[in-house]
Amino acid sequence: MWPDTRIQELFDIEFPIVQAPMAGANGSAMAIAVAEAGGLGSLPCALLTPDQLRAELGAIRAGTRRPVNVNFFCHRPPQPDVEREAAWRHELSRYYVELGLDPDAPVPASSRAPFDDEFCGLVEELRPEIVSFHFGLPERRLLNRVRATRARIVSSATTVREARWLEDAGCDAIIAQGAEAGGHRGMFLAEAVDRQVGTMALVPQVVDAVKVPVIAAGGIADGRGIAAALALGAAAVQVGTAYLFCPESTVADPHREALRSAHADDTVLTNVFTGRPARSIVNRTVREVGPLSPLAPAFPLAGGALAPLRSAAPSGSADFMSLWSGQGVALRRELTAADLTRVLAQEALARLSSLTSGAAR
Amino acid sequence: MWPDTRIQELFDIEFPIVQAPMAGANGSAMAIAVAEAGGLGSLPCALLTPDQLRAELGAIRAGTRRPVNVNFFCHRPPQPDVEREAAWRHELSRYYVELGLDPDAPVPASSRAPFDDEFCGLVEELRPEIVSFHFGLPERRLLNRVRATRARIVSSATTVREARWLEDAGCDAIIAQGAEAGGHRGMFLAEAVDRQVGTMALVPQVVDAVKVPVIAAGGIADGRGIAAALALGAAAVQVGTAYLFCPESTVADPHREALRSAHADDTVLTNVFTGRPARSIVNRTVREVGPLSPLAPAFPLAGGALAPLRSAAPSGSADFMSLWSGQGVALRRELTAADLTRVLAQEALARLSSLTSGAAR
Repeated sequence: MWPDTRIQELFDIEFPIVQAPMAGANGSAMAIAVAEAGGLGSLPCALLTPDQLRAELGAIRAGTRRPVNVNFFCHRPPQPDVEREAAWRHELSRYYVELGLDPDAPVPASSRAPFDDEFCGLVEELRPEIVSFHFGLPERRLLNRVRATRARIVSSATTVREARWLEDAGCDAIIAQGAEAGGHRGMFLAEAVDRQVGTMALVPQVVDAVKVPVIAAGGIADGRGIAAALALGAAAVQVGTAYLFCPESTVADPHREALRSAHADDTVLTNVFTGRPARSIVNRTVREVGPLSPLAPAFPLAGGALAPLRSAAPSGSADFMSLWSGQGVALRRELTAADLTRVLAQEALARLSSLTSGAAR
Repeated sequence: MWPDTRIQELFDIEFPIVQAPMAGANGSAMAIAVAEAGGLGSLPCALLTPDQLRAELGAIRAGTRRPVNVNFFCHRPPQPDVEREAAWRHELSRYYVELGLDPDAPVPASSRAPFDDEFCGLVEELRPEIVSFHFGLPERRLLNRVRATRARIVSSATTVREARWLEDAGCDAIIAQGAEAGGHRGMFLAEAVDRQVGTMALVPQVVDAVKVPVIAAGGIADGRGIAAALALGAAAVQVGTAYLFCPESTVADPHREALRSAHADDTVLTNVFTGRPARSIVNRTVREVGPLSPLAPAFPLAGGALAPLRSAAPSGSADFMSLWSGQGVALRRELTAADLTRVLAQEALARLSSLTSGAAR
């Protein structure tokens, strides 16, 4: 039925559908629901403490016997840069004044933690079947420890060069992350935000460049997108934005509201929320400070100075909040994560079948 | 065999493949070859005088009895802005000095002409079967005259809103131009270059929004891309960059050389060559003056001041030349336009068939 079952075999899943790990937007509940429905459920760990990771993964193990994907950021922690951080605080000071906050009060450190010895120890102990990384891969020493657990190792490429690099480093599968995708660009060798490659062009070029199976991501939100990704040579898809509409999504209410009315061309790649380029719906911060600010401190430091603004903003305000979204946002529908997973699979199979029966119109 | 034959019926062509009209990069020879092979051959007219259009269309009529697409730009001619043009000349003056040119010598007017009464008279006289426009549509009076010739009318949309506008204005088919596409963005209501939508996300959203058949463009360069576009709901594809490698392509040698070595992430949307955003391989002008310069005069005036630089640059230099290219550039192969058309169709049919036979790997 499915044209290429390599990812299903590699991950031991029924459908070639990966629920994108979305830090801040999903936890164990969504991962369990997707896994039980036949897809690959994912737990994003970038915003979790080790204790939270233990609790969340424990909940998943209690909720399903299916494999799970645990996802980590693997950026290098930035060197503090007092001058740049002061310039960023200055850039945002008008909002502090507007909201009656002291522009000079200390701000919380951003909590996005990279994969380190402690997280690695948890992987060794808790043994998730799939471990995926964003922003490249951790240092070889840590990666070897992950590999020794026999976890399948996955990371994202935004260019052919990144895909080859990941294959050479031993990834078992590679996510080709097209420019349509929501949230952080996985770019780790590429630097130019304005040269990011769309899914339609990226996927076949990555498929040609590597031997491992490719998972297509970016702009895929229904069965048509899945069928298209498979036509391009991907063995599976990763779907993010479509899952943000599920009741299991943990996005804040203003984010959910913004998603419900967004058009495909309401999103932009911006660095203002974290310091790294990520696709967000345009809001006040993006419009007035970004989308790409040379003042934004290195990832993830830029986020610190926005936190007090989010807290002080009127209830329901999305002004200072990252509104991660891909360009497939307008294909939205509100289903449970389990139903969405099943519907995506059914639609994709029906679409594939219609393509040769002359009934695609 | 083909899942949706609406475009083939509408245009009376064998394959759902439109050769993109590429001003400066193709003339009658390519259009004839594509038409005879079973696709829709296109004649770009933006850089032609009425006499040249008459000669080129005459050559096509002599070379094939198949239908032809004649393509016009329909921008409003810009108001002269002496100050902005002086600033642009000043911005480029260092290159004039470097090449031993007088920075104050008059520059040629850019020759991109919008569709007007004279072109419309030629359409009425020469009766191309398909008339396509870029940058929206001409004024209603002219459009009505085109419609009265019974030509099929087509234009490009970069957003759902533009697609609806074109359908309301009476287009018979709409090109959904994803951000991967080379050359000028067709945008006419949208303004934000950084919000352009990728093909994977744009096509299904446009398909859902309009009743007329949709032609997918952007990043499509082989049978996989065609199969993917059809999976997304497009009834046909428009292929540009892949045809630039054909012997019938009229690109300058430095452009051809740049295409032969470009990676997908070597292209960018830039306004420096004409004043409107268009996807080009990054070269010296893009790197040093753009990619998006607030100084570039309105389309098409920006191009005038670059012409003397192109003429004076050393032979083989691509420094001051627009290097239009889509992100599918690395899927290149060097075939005649006829062979490429047939290969694209064969590959697409084989790919569609493999998707349900389980042989897609």
